Amino acid sequence: MAAGALTAEEILAATEGVLRRYGPAKATVVDVARALGVSHGSVYRHFPTKAALRAAVTRRWLDRNHAGLAELAAEDSPAPERLRRWLAALFEAKRRKALDDPELFATYTVLAGESDTVVGEHIDALLGEIALIIADGVAQGAFAPCDPQVTARAVLDATGRFHNPLYAAEWSAPEIDTAFGAVCSLVLAGLRATG
Amino acid sequence: MAAGALTAEEILAATEGVLRRYGPAKATVVDVARALGVSHGSVYRHFPTKAALRAAVTRRWLDRNHAGLAELAAEDSPAPERLRRWLAALFEAKRRKALDDPELFATYTVLAGESDTVVGEHIDALLGEIALIIADGVAQGAFAPCDPQVTARAVLDATGRFHNPLYAAEWSAPEIDTAFGAVCSLVLAGLRATG
Repeated sequence: MAAGALTAEEILAATEGVLRRYGPAKATVVDVARALGVSHGSVYRHFPTKAALRAAVTRRWLDRNHAGLAELAAEDSPAPERLRRWLAALFEAKRRKALDDPELFATYTVLAGESDTVVGEHIDALLGEIALIIADGVAQGAFAPCDPQVTARAVLDATGRFHNPLYAAEWSAPEIDTAFGAVCSLVLAGLRATG
Repeated sequence: MAAGALTAEEILAATEGVLRRYGPAKATVVDVARALGVSHGSVYRHFPTKAALRAAVTRRWLDRNHAGLAELAAEDSPAPERLRRWLAALFEAKRRKALDDPELFATYTVLAGESDTVVGEHIDALLGEIALIIADGVAQGAFAPCDPQVTARAVLDATGRFHNPLYAAEWSAPEIDTAFGAVCSLVLAGLRATG
């Protein structure tokens, strides 16, 4: 492959393949270059360090998990029902990744643990979307007045069993959907209530 | 030590010492017997298998974490404030164990992962206490009518960041108490609200 034709996306796709094949502990930039048939210098031209490459592939994975959520959060619709759908979509996206391809999920969980910055940006994006829905709900009179940023953090924390990868082993349990519904109802009732 | 004088509690205390010294992967019943100066048969007389001994020492540890919570749950006092104190006491007990003695905490986290039964009993005890407070709150008119068992599970799930050992690494973060307060307020508002 001519070095000039190499895009960042091609490198990231190859990196995911290498991670899948060798695991996060052993995968190297040289392996990625070899998979692409280029010199490792060609990879470093896009990603100056191994850490930068790993952070970028982790960000790509998290963004993929997250596809469609921002649009859902920005919908013009009643906030309580929109928040419930947003939380369900987040849970469903994470659960599908974890159950459909557990090895790749485990690999990315290791990678995410290496980069507080990438995970922090991902969480900030989620918090921003929840805060948007909450602010809409307050404006609609459906939620009690509150600080949407602070309350968004409480909502994300309270639903952690249904999106935090630490809990992935519980996501195939038969009672998990009932548990999710009960927590959503409690959270939504809390948002409606005056403080 | 005369075998006749050996109590289950002495064996469990010695087992904790052996676990601390050798770690959960390497500790054996022979190590426990040696630490007590008795034959391993004397240990097996109380605990018929290594698994039974490990389950018993894990139960003892979880019960110790849990000291005082049952009494707090059964108090004759307003339910909302009682539930907040109960959740704070649970968080404080777990956090103290995790931060004061992280190695022993990690050891018991491994052991708890081996025994679904012991952990299940512990969680059932916590759920029973939360359900008791919720039922009192409904009777007092402070909480909306609900199924206390189902709602107790939602409350335990929603506060997982503040008692599930998976989150122990976050318990020394400076913002954790603010986060705890926000989740408690959301949960209590949800319990007050009509469904």
